[in-house]
Amino acid sequence: MKPVKVGLLGLGTVGCGVVNVVARNASEIRRRAGRGIDIVSASARNLARRRECELSGIELTTDPSIIINDPEIQVVLELIGGIEPARTLVLGAVENRKHVVTANKALIALHGNEIFARASEKGVTVAFEAAVGGGIPIIKAIREALSGNTIEWLAGIINGTGNFILTEMRDKGRDFADVLAEAQRLGYAEADPTFDVEGIDAAHKLTILASIAFGIPLQFDRVYTEGITRITAKDVRNAAELGYRIKHLGIARRQGEGIELRVHPALIPHRRLLANVDGVMNAVLVRGDAVGPTLYYGPGAGAEPTASAVVADLVDVTRDLTVDPTNRVPHLAFQPDALVDLPVLPISQAISAYYLHLRAFDRPGVLADITRILGERKISIEAVLQPQPEEGAKDASIVILTAPVRESHIDEAITAIQSLDALTVPLTRIRVETLK
Amino acid sequence: MKPVKVGLLGLGTVGCGVVNVVARNASEIRRRAGRGIDIVSASARNLARRRECELSGIELTTDPSIIINDPEIQVVLELIGGIEPARTLVLGAVENRKHVVTANKALIALHGNEIFARASEKGVTVAFEAAVGGGIPIIKAIREALSGNTIEWLAGIINGTGNFILTEMRDKGRDFADVLAEAQRLGYAEADPTFDVEGIDAAHKLTILASIAFGIPLQFDRVYTEGITRITAKDVRNAAELGYRIKHLGIARRQGEGIELRVHPALIPHRRLLANVDGVMNAVLVRGDAVGPTLYYGPGAGAEPTASAVVADLVDVTRDLTVDPTNRVPHLAFQPDALVDLPVLPISQAISAYYLHLRAFDRPGVLADITRILGERKISIEAVLQPQPEEGAKDASIVILTAPVRESHIDEAITAIQSLDALTVPLTRIRVETLK
Repeated sequence: MKPVKVGLLGLGTVGCGVVNVVARNASEIRRRAGRGIDIVSASARNLARRRECELSGIELTTDPSIIINDPEIQVVLELIGGIEPARTLVLGAVENRKHVVTANKALIALHGNEIFARASEKGVTVAFEAAVGGGIPIIKAIREALSGNTIEWLAGIINGTGNFILTEMRDKGRDFADVLAEAQRLGYAEADPTFDVEGIDAAHKLTILASIAFGIPLQFDRVYTEGITRITAKDVRNAAELGYRIKHLGIARRQGEGIELRVHPALIPHRRLLANVDGVMNAVLVRGDAVGPTLYYGPGAGAEPTASAVVADLVDVTRDLTVDPTNRVPHLAFQPDALVDLPVLPISQAISAYYLHLRAFDRPGVLADITRILGERKISIEAVLQPQPEEGAKDASIVILTAPVRESHIDEAITAIQSLDALTVPLTRIRVETLK
Repeated sequence: MKPVKVGLLGLGTVGCGVVNVVARNASEIRRRAGRGIDIVSASARNLARRRECELSGIELTTDPSIIINDPEIQVVLELIGGIEPARTLVLGAVENRKHVVTANKALIALHGNEIFARASEKGVTVAFEAAVGGGIPIIKAIREALSGNTIEWLAGIINGTGNFILTEMRDKGRDFADVLAEAQRLGYAEADPTFDVEGIDAAHKLTILASIAFGIPLQFDRVYTEGITRITAKDVRNAAELGYRIKHLGIARRQGEGIELRVHPALIPHRRLLANVDGVMNAVLVRGDAVGPTLYYGPGAGAEPTASAVVADLVDVTRDLTVDPTNRVPHLAFQPDALVDLPVLPISQAISAYYLHLRAFDRPGVLADITRILGERKISIEAVLQPQPEEGAKDASIVILTAPVRESHIDEAITAIQSLDALTVPLTRIRVETLK
């Protein structure tokens, strides 16, 4: 078979990674796909920039529209990132009946519904394995490998920067701001780290995972999102003492007739595999009703891991060239006319256990008041920890783990606890997930 | 689209699991595949047996040849297990140009080359996701998701019974025979546990994984296989003290121009995810040159996890009905004419670090003799542990961890050590894998 002709938009780190991997593994890829992958042209804003990949044999241009309009090109690879011009270019390629492979999570999370609808009309595929979990084949696993299951829930560490920071905080006992600064020096965190540490990047990815797990439209604006900026070294230490680790999770879970969609830090029992996913690595735990728990682990970012996912998509798309379009794997795992609009529950209806950390004047009756407030609301206490007060401190810490409870109930209890005049600083709350 | 018509051979635990999952998740499956899966007929040796699944609406027979010859049937599901009559029936179905889905690892490991060759000639697919790792989509991950990589190595816990036994030995400090007896009582181990505890089952699975990872023919008879029957509670304890856990691994690794293929117990550093895969769970760690390390975890056996893999194959095969056969995912990941016969290295050429456990008379010079023997063969020592001798014992334990070394060199060293007259019992050796 003739090689498939690919046009590449974007020659940044990932674009160059793809060029390198396709060149280095050309023979392995051809042995598998039965044909080569030929990157015939590439566009970049600045062609003068020095790049870490060999571009000879690739036609270069600063005008991406040349590529999406080239009748020779069968597959367009979008590695520009961000919303525009990526959105216009992807839609343009689709309009010209070209298959598209993209690593752009923001684009898919925010504009996937529109893009997939156009792609279906035009009979082409827009593939996006690299958009979630870097090199981990999590899209393929959920979309194809678990097709016999009703997915009950999934929980993932899907932002490498955040996980690197939390791992360092635990290993070195350091505070968030300290570790963030180091991560920025090392290049693991951006100069503006908002997307990573506030959970927006994870929310983009969770949006996509939830859609393919449950067959619901992409709805980024419904994801409850909480970052890791308020986690302290003390919380990390308390969690360890209780047998837990703090991780930043994206969680999608069926609850009754609705879906919980939430990104937030959480305590996880330290013997769970997910609690042992460290540094910049990612992992997603998926529970299907037939298969039970399955976990997928690997590098969540980086040029070559992302290239691994991109090339797998290129090979899949190449195979799709001869499939009756109605028989392909649907973009969102479920047939477009079979998507259902299950309601996304407000966070007040979510159910989690809770870690509560209070500082209160060290006097009798405080713990009794707190347990009474929780008890009145039928919130069970699983554990209480009272770390030794610091020398000369006017107040002492109380750490409480509750049983799972509806968020609105814990909110009420917290309001009541905060109104006790014994508290010296506002209470800290972190969700606890047993992942069962 | 019309439902795909499936004929099921074998109504044991897994067969019933598939019937149940297909019925329970009929709507989720139809929403994904765009068509239903209709199990129209099933065969079993004894139709009078009580079964844990609803068989109304399924035509039952004791004669499987009726199913493979039924022109209505599009896909044959082989869940009989063992070699015959499974092999003849699968080849018969292929001859009749029916796609086949099977969970039969022994059949694929021993007769896959023949079966896939016939299937290719006839333009049909024989799918086998359920043959390795139960519900873990490890075949799909390696075959499709890592297609952009040169696979460097893989290492897996691929036998649940063995892993259950080793986990119990560690958790409860008990000996192998004890735990095996309990596993048999609980139904986790067969009355004849040879296949599981001697590593034959794992070797079947490793044969398959190595083939799809490297593009080599299936060659079960080349796998070096060592069971877990000689692991003692003391080894487990020594390993823990050194920061390791003992797991039964299947390992396939490129080394020079050849491939190492080996099943044996191994010490793994306790912080590795694979060291924390406990009980009957399975996991496979795969390292690709582009993606780096990826891990896939889940239940390695059981009716419903296996059914999950079987249904995923059924959906994939259904999609294949309209694909140009040359464009399908090849059976062994690589195009049949692109398989290469990389030599499988004899175990004497494999490279591993080593755990050595000796008992010797407690007198001066013994450790010096041993370190001299290792030093003369340029085998570096990474750690030495000398547990407190038992009260009144005439001899003492010495535990040594070596650096990685070619097996033939450690063999020579062990022969020399054994010939020291200080040893009171034969030396114990277990490989150590850092999985890097």
